[in-house]
Amino acid sequence: MFVLGIDPGLSRCGYGVVRKYGSDLAATAGGVVTTEPDLPLQERLRVLYTELRALVAEIHPDAVVVERVFFQTNVRTAMATGQAGGVALLVAAEAGCEVAQYSANEVKQAVVGFGGATKDQVQRMVAALVGLDEPPKPPDVADALALAVCHVTSQPLRRAIEIAGSGRRK
Amino acid sequence: MFVLGIDPGLSRCGYGVVRKYGSDLAATAGGVVTTEPDLPLQERLRVLYTELRALVAEIHPDAVVVERVFFQTNVRTAMATGQAGGVALLVAAEAGCEVAQYSANEVKQAVVGFGGATKDQVQRMVAALVGLDEPPKPPDVADALALAVCHVTSQPLRRAIEIAGSGRRK
Repeated sequence: MFVLGIDPGLSRCGYGVVRKYGSDLAATAGGVVTTEPDLPLQERLRVLYTELRALVAEIHPDAVVVERVFFQTNVRTAMATGQAGGVALLVAAEAGCEVAQYSANEVKQAVVGFGGATKDQVQRMVAALVGLDEPPKPPDVADALALAVCHVTSQPLRRAIEIAGSGRRK
Repeated sequence: MFVLGIDPGLSRCGYGVVRKYGSDLAATAGGVVTTEPDLPLQERLRVLYTELRALVAEIHPDAVVVERVFFQTNVRTAMATGQAGGVALLVAAEAGCEVAQYSANEVKQAVVGFGGATKDQVQRMVAALVGLDEPPKPPDVADALALAVCHVTSQPLRRAIEIAGSGRRK
């Protein structure tokens, strides 16, 4: 299965694709969609939408994972992140595949094992998990790959919980 | 000219259409796009996108005006407003017409004459300006109409400033 991770942002939106084959993970693509700060806001969002749609059309992911952002100290940045995240989620919905969201803490927990992990620890672990010699660059790509890794590694657990839950309801 | 005002929100997204003919203003449409809280976030954003696109296709506005939101005390609400606003701005960009954003204070300034006006004052003034006997209901529609009124009334001033500015540059 192919999982597309998206780390939403208006100026820089990281993406990364992880392929899961059996228990093997591999990073198969990654990059950053950037939008020009000089463009009107609505045009920046349109660029983001168009680029992300093109990515989905090219990758045909089985799942799209978008970071869930709860809080940002800078209110203006929070709005921009929300706007970009809304567009990313719209693209995910239109892709017609599984869609998931994880917070930064959930990603750290899944990838490193505890929510207080440093950015550097997450990036090294992601590199090791997807078979790269060193952390993917730029960091936006590493963050997006971490989201995808979080999804594929937490899936078996989630399925087991669902199965256990449906068994109990019988 | 027809101006579509959009007051973005994930649960309730108000819209209102103002027609300007000479110096006469009239409200020609208004309503609220709602999305079910039980739906996954990405599906709610898709419903909003689909509904707003259908509106634009029906109305063929000369301008789309979206409220510019700077700050909300509730961080979770701020994210949802940002996400819905991003989708609204994307629809506006795709409409291929003029796009504008105004803050709540700019709207109050344009409609009532001062930024500290109450919601009630804005709604009564909007009703009077667009030829309605009483404030449009629900309030989301009044807010959206106020955005559209703000745009049509501030346009002559903006054009005069542009012309004056271009004259000075010669």
